Amino acid sequence: MENKIGFVGLGDIGLPMAKNLIDAGYHLQVYNRTASKADMLNAAHITLCPTPADAANGVPVVISMLTDDEVVTQNTTGENGILKKIAKGAIHISMSSISPDAAEHLAKLHADAGSTLIVATVFGRPEAAAAKKLWICTSGDKTAKETVRPILEQLGQSIIDFGEPAGNANVLKIAGNFMIMSSMEIMAEAFTMAEKSGLDRAQVADFFCSTIFNAPIFQNYGKLIANKQYEPVGFKATLGYKDARLALKLSQKTEMPAPVCAVVNNRLLTAIARGHGDHDWVEAFGQGVSTDSGL
Amino acid sequence: MENKIGFVGLGDIGLPMAKNLIDAGYHLQVYNRTASKADMLNAAHITLCPTPADAANGVPVVISMLTDDEVVTQNTTGENGILKKIAKGAIHISMSSISPDAAEHLAKLHADAGSTLIVATVFGRPEAAAAKKLWICTSGDKTAKETVRPILEQLGQSIIDFGEPAGNANVLKIAGNFMIMSSMEIMAEAFTMAEKSGLDRAQVADFFCSTIFNAPIFQNYGKLIANKQYEPVGFKATLGYKDARLALKLSQKTEMPAPVCAVVNNRLLTAIARGHGDHDWVEAFGQGVSTDSGL
Amino acid sequence: MENKIGFVGLGDIGLPMAKNLIDAGYHLQVYNRTASKADMLNAAHITLCPTPADAANGVPVVISMLTDDEVVTQNTTGENGILKKIAKGAIHISMSSISPDAAEHLAKLHADAGSTLIVATVFGRPEAAAAKKLWICTSGDKTAKETVRPILEQLGQSIIDFGEPAGNANVLKIAGNFMIMSSMEIMAEAFTMAEKSGLDRAQVADFFCSTIFNAPIFQNYGKLIANKQYEPVGFKATLGYKDARLALKLSQKTEMPAPVCAVVNNRLLTAIARGHGDHDWVEAFGQGVSTDSGL
Amino acid sequence: MENKIGFVGLGDIGLPMAKNLIDAGYHLQVYNRTASKADMLNAAHITLCPTPADAANGVPVVISMLTDDEVVTQNTTGENGILKKIAKGAIHISMSSISPDAAEHLAKLHADAGSTLIVATVFGRPEAAAAKKLWICTSGDKTAKETVRPILEQLGQSIIDFGEPAGNANVLKIAGNFMIMSSMEIMAEAFTMAEKSGLDRAQVADFFCSTIFNAPIFQNYGKLIANKQYEPVGFKATLGYKDARLALKLSQKTEMPAPVCAVVNNRLLTAIARGHGDHDWVEAFGQGVSTDSGL
Repeated sequence: MENKIGFVGLGDIGLPMAKNLIDAGYHLQVYNRTASKADMLNAAHITLCPTPADAANGVPVVISMLTDDEVVTQNTTGENGILKKIAKGAIHISMSSISPDAAEHLAKLHADAGSTLIVATVFGRPEAAAAKKLWICTSGDKTAKETVRPILEQLGQSIIDFGEPAGNANVLKIAGNFMIMSSMEIMAEAFTMAEKSGLDRAQVADFFCSTIFNAPIFQNYGKLIANKQYEPVGFKATLGYKDARLALKLSQKTEMPAPVCAVVNNRLLTAIARGHGDHDWVEAFGQGVSTDSGL
Repeated sequence: MENKIGFVGLGDIGLPMAKNLIDAGYHLQVYNRTASKADMLNAAHITLCPTPADAANGVPVVISMLTDDEVVTQNTTGENGILKKIAKGAIHISMSSISPDAAEHLAKLHADAGSTLIVATVFGRPEAAAAKKLWICTSGDKTAKETVRPILEQLGQSIIDFGEPAGNANVLKIAGNFMIMSSMEIMAEAFTMAEKSGLDRAQVADFFCSTIFNAPIFQNYGKLIANKQYEPVGFKATLGYKDARLALKLSQKTEMPAPVCAVVNNRLLTAIARGHGDHDWVEAFGQGVSTDSGL
Repeated sequence: MENKIGFVGLGDIGLPMAKNLIDAGYHLQVYNRTASKADMLNAAHITLCPTPADAANGVPVVISMLTDDEVVTQNTTGENGILKKIAKGAIHISMSSISPDAAEHLAKLHADAGSTLIVATVFGRPEAAAAKKLWICTSGDKTAKETVRPILEQLGQSIIDFGEPAGNANVLKIAGNFMIMSSMEIMAEAFTMAEKSGLDRAQVADFFCSTIFNAPIFQNYGKLIANKQYEPVGFKATLGYKDARLALKLSQKTEMPAPVCAVVNNRLLTAIARGHGDHDWVEAFGQGVSTDSGL
Repeated sequence: MENKIGFVGLGDIGLPMAKNLIDAGYHLQVYNRTASKADMLNAAHITLCPTPADAANGVPVVISMLTDDEVVTQNTTGENGILKKIAKGAIHISMSSISPDAAEHLAKLHADAGSTLIVATVFGRPEAAAAKKLWICTSGDKTAKETVRPILEQLGQSIIDFGEPAGNANVLKIAGNFMIMSSMEIMAEAFTMAEKSGLDRAQVADFFCSTIFNAPIFQNYGKLIANKQYEPVGFKATLGYKDARLALKLSQKTEMPAPVCAVVNNRLLTAIARGHGDHDWVEAFGQGVSTDSGL
């Protein structure tokens, strides 16, 4: 008999993860706000559930991959939330990009209910999720992390642990997203400086991203920024801004002034104020610098 | 008979470059403000010269690797400058990190004098220079660049050309140094955010620099910032600030507002104002963020 | 028979306001977390209450002057909050510096309960409050504002109305506090620039604050900043930071990037991170710029 | 017989100053690059000169009121510059907004030539100049300042002295212009925050500028920013940017990081990059914030 697990949230990253779990032999109790998204999964191996609570019902493990603090909290503590039906002893793997405070609050509620919430955040674009190439950062109860390790191994190329406090992996995700956004900003500034000096923006990007900055973040986003290629939309500016605000909030909470964090917040907020919240976040940086420069 | 070339400037990068040229069979006419630096070169293969003019005298190629616009200009156009004795038809390879305006001005003076100045800027720390692993960016007269190619090939792992305008390779160097400084700033902000959230700063750095940010810049500087290891001094804050100002000046000249450029300028200026101009530039970023955060 | 009104919050501004109301012939039902503060009021004209609810009990008007969103909400909607005993038809004048969202939320709860919350925010230091020289900005239900006008006239030199939406006067307070903080920052930057150029900081301040910047904000804070006189503590950095965050939150909510708002947030956060949250907010700016400048 | 003085520079401030001097009984030896500007002066009381040198020829005092370091230097040290014909013992009053370094350099050249350069910078719009309401800041040789005092008294409402180093009054002008620009930026941010919160931007400006910010700078510029009234052009963005850069340069030279100075530099540079360098500098701030906010 196949293993059953719950799965809540079939977004850009959640959907390919769900596919990989099915391929690995799991049967998924799936909940998604827009149920039709589940059509993209093999119907033989899923049970479509009307609520998050039902997705969590009777399984040893439920995964959630949702948008933000509010949505995760609603799907967990709401009237039909995961906590309503999660079994005693079961494990909830929270994979959403949320604040460490929210994660820790939810972990406490699970503990009170006799279940366990651990956190597993991921780095990687949808293609990486499809290719099982995500980087997975975990935090939370040690035993629970060991229990779910075989599941996580079906989703990424590496699992790195950051200790017992449940929110630690959320801190890592926030810090990482801040570094990614900031990298886009500095590339946009550098490439525009070169362009306005008469150089070929794309050649400059090629050089840096194949030598001293030859890391995936610079290679992937650098090409888009160099070519001013802002479509198709991979990750909306509004979602990027959510993450930028999480970083700003964390800098406030931990009392550490972060001037570049202020810059990237303003960059994304400008894009949203101009009505480009649904455009790709790369555009917020690339086009933002260009617009300020009269290009 | 061995080939003779002129060499002006035995600094942290210039000295290992000179050694490599000697190893490759060149005889160097060397000038350095502090003559004793030449003691570190094989005396059989150098002629120590009392002035830059003498270093340039009678050779087909002279290389200069100096500090800033003022020093390069002084060594080139001054009373005992390169232009005083450079032969007609000879080539001056300017490898210093200076403004494109200064480079273009000097290129014009060379043209007027019947010689040619081309630019070859480099990326890499002293160890990279010693190992012939520099990345070399060239710009300027095409024929001259072809002529000196065999020389440059003794200095780096790759030569990338950025066109005829002499200052282009200077733009690249400035843009690159801006990206390097900015990377230090965002790492300092991200690692401090993690540290003040209770995570192990070094583990966070390890994770990012071995995954989505696995580029030399992040690996080398990331380790120093993570470990708050600011000694020995590899590159002084004052020199970093010179480069930051070049970037700011270029952003002014090309009319492109660059908010992160303002942040890194302020960071280095703060270090200098506090009397830490002789400390490593990594400290300006790493310790700067820590100090503002009460650490 | 004298008029009775409720009064919640005997802080630096609340206390002198309460005195003025007593002087004007009102009898106050007073609540303060630290009850002993009421010792500074004429006992014959107050009734000390054990809870905010009791202060609001049976009176046509209750005034609250408290710290922040959380405290105001707790004192209004909590177990012993104003809403528990406020009479139908009575008016709650919210004078605290809180977010417009919080004010509007509370206004709605009052309307549901058959009472009315209006907002009256004030500008002025404690001395101004004592001298009935506060500037009072009002917003909310028109009839209620007319009803309480005689009361507000006992507290300030002028009452300016900003319309029906309850939160408008809160927006004004936030915008004004942002302008005040920013003025401190720019004075600190300008005076330090002059000082480090060899001029007498105090003479520079005197000149500007008696000519083109001869407004109270510049005169009062300018003198403190020029003289680096940061004691006694008039308004704590932590309270200033609360207001800076309200401004930042409002800029986020209204989608308007505000780079100087980011600067003043960082300045106050730096002071707090360094353990100076209990120092005067003027120090955060004055000393903050000095410290960054190596003074 | 009437007193003769030299006068170089009939710009927006220079022209009304020249008129006032004529009204006070002086005969002016006038030079202006565009000679026709002198048509606006009473021909009976001027001698139009073909060069700055001629304007300075044979008079005890020559005033210059020009654009920037380069123009002042050219008009003073150039082939037909003031120094060519200024009499021994004569006094040059430099009233232009230039860097203290340039002023001190020129003061030294005058001393070498047996004449004296002192600095007298002014605050005030053209209307203030016409009404003799300028604020005049002086620095330089004490005796020379006493000698020219009767002349300066014809130009402004008050003369404030800042000591012997010639450049001191330039520092004051730079610091003051920085404060003016920053005030525009913070008003633009505050008013836009209020506008996007649903308040009447003009009413908000009226309130602040008639109460706690009731200084000329806030009243004059506040009205323009509140009403988004950016014409006619009083002071071009390019000229404002020149002053912003002087402030930035001074912050670099004196080693004092100034984050708001960076903000106003970027604001003006953005306006210029967008092709609005010839628009009023108020627009750079007012419209700059509006554009970033999607208005």
